[in-house]
Amino acid sequence: TVLQAAFFKISELLPIDTAIEEMKAAAQKAYYTKGSSIVKMNTDAIEAGADNVHEVTVPAGWANLKDEEIKGTKNAPDIVTQVCDHINRQKGNELPVSVFVDRMDGSIEMGLTAYEKRGIAVNTPKWDPEKCLQCNMCSFVCPHAAIRPHLLSDEECASAPAGMKTVPSKPDGKYKYTLSVSEFDCTGCGSCVNSCPAKEKAITMGPARLTDEARSEWDYSLTISKKPGAYNKYTVKGSQFETPLVEFSAACAGCGETPYAKIMTQLFGDRVYWANGTGCSQAWGATYPGIPYTVNERGFGPAWTNSLFENNAELMLGMYLSVTQQRGLQKKRVRQLLEASSDDKVRNACEKYLESFDDFDASRTASDELIEVLEATASCRELADEILMRRDHLARKSFWMYGGDGWAYDIGFGGLDHVIATGANINTLVIDTEVYSNTGGQSSKATPIGAVAQFASAGKTTKKKDLGAIFMTYGNVYVASVSMGANPNQLLKVLKEAEEYDGPSVIVAYTPCITHGIKAGMGAAQEEMKRAVDSGYWTLYHYDPRLPDPLVVDCREPSLDYEEFLSGETRYSSLKKTFPDNAKKLFDIGARDAKERYDKYKAMEKQ
Amino acid sequence: TVLQAAFFKISELLPIDTAIEEMKAAAQKAYYTKGSSIVKMNTDAIEAGADNVHEVTVPAGWANLKDEEIKGTKNAPDIVTQVCDHINRQKGNELPVSVFVDRMDGSIEMGLTAYEKRGIAVNTPKWDPEKCLQCNMCSFVCPHAAIRPHLLSDEECASAPAGMKTVPSKPDGKYKYTLSVSEFDCTGCGSCVNSCPAKEKAITMGPARLTDEARSEWDYSLTISKKPGAYNKYTVKGSQFETPLVEFSAACAGCGETPYAKIMTQLFGDRVYWANGTGCSQAWGATYPGIPYTVNERGFGPAWTNSLFENNAELMLGMYLSVTQQRGLQKKRVRQLLEASSDDKVRNACEKYLESFDDFDASRTASDELIEVLEATASCRELADEILMRRDHLARKSFWMYGGDGWAYDIGFGGLDHVIATGANINTLVIDTEVYSNTGGQSSKATPIGAVAQFASAGKTTKKKDLGAIFMTYGNVYVASVSMGANPNQLLKVLKEAEEYDGPSVIVAYTPCITHGIKAGMGAAQEEMKRAVDSGYWTLYHYDPRLPDPLVVDCREPSLDYEEFLSGETRYSSLKKTFPDNAKKLFDIGARDAKERYDKYKAMEKQ
Repeated sequence: TVLQAAFFKISELLPIDTAIEEMKAAAQKAYYTKGSSIVKMNTDAIEAGADNVHEVTVPAGWANLKDEEIKGTKNAPDIVTQVCDHINRQKGNELPVSVFVDRMDGSIEMGLTAYEKRGIAVNTPKWDPEKCLQCNMCSFVCPHAAIRPHLLSDEECASAPAGMKTVPSKPDGKYKYTLSVSEFDCTGCGSCVNSCPAKEKAITMGPARLTDEARSEWDYSLTISKKPGAYNKYTVKGSQFETPLVEFSAACAGCGETPYAKIMTQLFGDRVYWANGTGCSQAWGATYPGIPYTVNERGFGPAWTNSLFENNAELMLGMYLSVTQQRGLQKKRVRQLLEASSDDKVRNACEKYLESFDDFDASRTASDELIEVLEATASCRELADEILMRRDHLARKSFWMYGGDGWAYDIGFGGLDHVIATGANINTLVIDTEVYSNTGGQSSKATPIGAVAQFASAGKTTKKKDLGAIFMTYGNVYVASVSMGANPNQLLKVLKEAEEYDGPSVIVAYTPCITHGIKAGMGAAQEEMKRAVDSGYWTLYHYDPRLPDPLVVDCREPSLDYEEFLSGETRYSSLKKTFPDNAKKLFDIGARDAKERYDKYKAMEKQ
Repeated sequence: TVLQAAFFKISELLPIDTAIEEMKAAAQKAYYTKGSSIVKMNTDAIEAGADNVHEVTVPAGWANLKDEEIKGTKNAPDIVTQVCDHINRQKGNELPVSVFVDRMDGSIEMGLTAYEKRGIAVNTPKWDPEKCLQCNMCSFVCPHAAIRPHLLSDEECASAPAGMKTVPSKPDGKYKYTLSVSEFDCTGCGSCVNSCPAKEKAITMGPARLTDEARSEWDYSLTISKKPGAYNKYTVKGSQFETPLVEFSAACAGCGETPYAKIMTQLFGDRVYWANGTGCSQAWGATYPGIPYTVNERGFGPAWTNSLFENNAELMLGMYLSVTQQRGLQKKRVRQLLEASSDDKVRNACEKYLESFDDFDASRTASDELIEVLEATASCRELADEILMRRDHLARKSFWMYGGDGWAYDIGFGGLDHVIATGANINTLVIDTEVYSNTGGQSSKATPIGAVAQFASAGKTTKKKDLGAIFMTYGNVYVASVSMGANPNQLLKVLKEAEEYDGPSVIVAYTPCITHGIKAGMGAAQEEMKRAVDSGYWTLYHYDPRLPDPLVVDCREPSLDYEEFLSGETRYSSLKKTFPDNAKKLFDIGARDAKERYDKYKAMEKQ
């Protein structure tokens, strides 16, 4: 807006007064529903843009400057220097076909966002070790995996860069604890600060340090070794010592989706087959060549793939059937080997593999040991080679469908229902932004009554579809409703249980989004998740078919006023300005529905 | 089987003993699962076929007989003589393009099955007026609309053909009552006899009368006038005095689907926009040129159309939106006319039309009167003509989606859910055969646990999807579960309420099918519907969002043993032979699920 006004002033395309008048009218029209203060900020900016045009004199020599050769990213794989750097310089069209000769199937290396180093944050988090509780909430909520805790041994501490602060690890001081920030990858949303539970905040926002020192500190932090046994990964604190396998994505600052994706990679790591429905999660998850999904210290990551709204669940089913079949064949071969081999090492490794076949972690360990033994043995070479050739199909896998409400509630619902109805052991995480986020905010069946969205500009008149209740009708589906900021421990519990449960699961996750117009800003997304539950707008529960009374409500009776929650988001508050009668009517119905839903679930608890 | 054995005997293609042996082995393999008595009937037939070959002498002149010209159907529209007759003689390929010149859009006249007169029944129902209760159940259940009651005035009685029996109408003898049978259209299933509640059956099966007299009696019966006010059409008895607008279809003898379609045409007549999902109902509903959907005495019928599984609901939504928009415009025009016209007749007709706008029957009457007045008036000619030009959009319409479980539970479920979620006033009747009937019996999500079907040859291992419970989660959807033979009055009640309810509705109808292998035969389909409810296999209920406690269970606690019901159908009993362990396990789970479902609904009643 500022530059546009300046442009009209300089270009004299229109008389400047007419241009300013037209721009102000347009701003009035565009921002009317957001309130008069927003309109005024825009009209002020228009005036300021036109009033503050000053001529800048530049040296005459600039006219003849030559292009300087830009150096490629240091220590980066070929794909970065040969492809990514050129695309990021907007020179993608000049790439010769020859650089793609070895990439003709479209495949691309993982984790390439780590080389982008955008450095877009004005302010980044600064850590005060003395005030820190070492709870790791800051890392848990970070949408870009740009703040991470580590446990250091004395040796690691000794060779750390001078600027890296450490304190004895809580509770026992066995290690040193540090909190690293990637100054170049942080987007400055402030979620970490807002989520810090320390009385006096242990992190505060301060000017970004886009320096070589800051970079070295971060790079060193990535070399710190894991400390197995030092924590339980199914806790907020413990989960954050696990390497996130999605990082530095192009998601909005404060995104509500990426923290859910990140915790999945920390809990389930490289055993995940991940079918990602299209939508925002595909846009920030796979904009060629900036792939945020990455690999662990072994070089493995989630087998991430994305598909259309209308066939994402079906794609997952195909992968599930194929992998299940392949693992069955591996089991059969290992059984044959156990019978045929006379090598005790081989026989022991086979036995251990077969015993742990259905256990995620133990089957990974047993598979690694089996691979090691088979590579060294002379016994039954042919059968051993057959097993080794398909080594990726030895350890147990975890199957997850992941997508937004546009996928799960709407366009992909038929397929999702079909796959869940098969009874297959496939899990689902629905990142429910209650709107088609990626395409600009169209109403979906997840949009609640009274919300303003495209195709519902006078407020949606029908209530939100109850996806969880629908899948509970099957009886054999693990169902849960979560909201990270309201109860992170409940989220961790249901993710663990859903994966363990021998059958399908559907977890519906409340997910703030820029389309909601949270007045406190996207940095307050986690608090908004809490307010949603406190007001009864969102209900936490899990339905575990293994329990005698499967449904358990995981939140207390609402204590915050329903409409007070709505008033904090422009998707609701704007309706009061544009259609006040609708707002009154629809908000009242929404409040009544919320109460009825809570009561219904409480009643179902006892059935 | 008989003719095949005879063929081998005559042709000597194989030594006859080998042929008989191979045929017996094939019969053993094919019918093993149906039980030893079925196998024996087949092997006996094979022997009898081979043993009873006798030479028949024919006149030598037969060798030189000439083709006799076959006369076209009498008193039939051009489409029958020009097209249908040729196709029915399997001479369709010889039709010249010229006969289709006036039918280039593919449209075709309604009710053409009435000209086919297949005469396939060996035995047809014979009526004993003295034993008859005049309850009209026989007509209610007839899959082909081949038996119909009528009320005759004294004059109509006097000019009736001699063979037409009549008795004074119950309860008051105001009219004469008759029961007409179309001997040429009856398929001889015997449903009418089985459903007759008279102590001594008032109808029995006897040799078909394929005579001109029988045809004249039927043709005369179609000329008998309606007797308005003599009955309530929302009762079993009353509904059968309404002309069915689907008749003589190519559905199987004893079909469970067609009686549901027929009662819809009797209750809702020509005001229905009918979106028919593909499947059997499309096969018997529209095999060109044999269209069973027909028109009433005014020349109007349901606006029937059919579409794919995957877009039938969407097609309905399009028709609904279009018609609703058109009616809205008509309302606006009538309002303008009311303001502009000074003709009292016109003004009165407009007022009456506007008052009855939302009432099905009254808006039909008011529309007819308005049309008559507008055709006669000189007042506001231009506006009147605009209204008359769109006269089809004056009276209120009723919107029904109709299809099987392959559509509603499976392939079309995403679309059905989407349309229902709009909150639009659209109704749904799911004729649930629990299997893909038309394509040969593939398992669907409606197939219950333990049933044998294609893709579930060892018995389906997951339980039936609870479609009604899913749609109850919306809260604003009228939902019902019906089973015609178990409680016809409940069926009539919910059809009426679903149409009246100002919002979406979904009625799930239990529908016997030849794929079930009902041991008592398809003529016993109505009793099977009752046994399904008596055993808890199927639960009757309706969920009316207008009620304070919306859910009402419409059947008593099961009194018949669940497995006893299963044993009457080969889709279940065959599993006991092929996979006895599965049968035991799955039937037990099915019985437990049935009990749990009934208890769950009873508990929901009080919530």
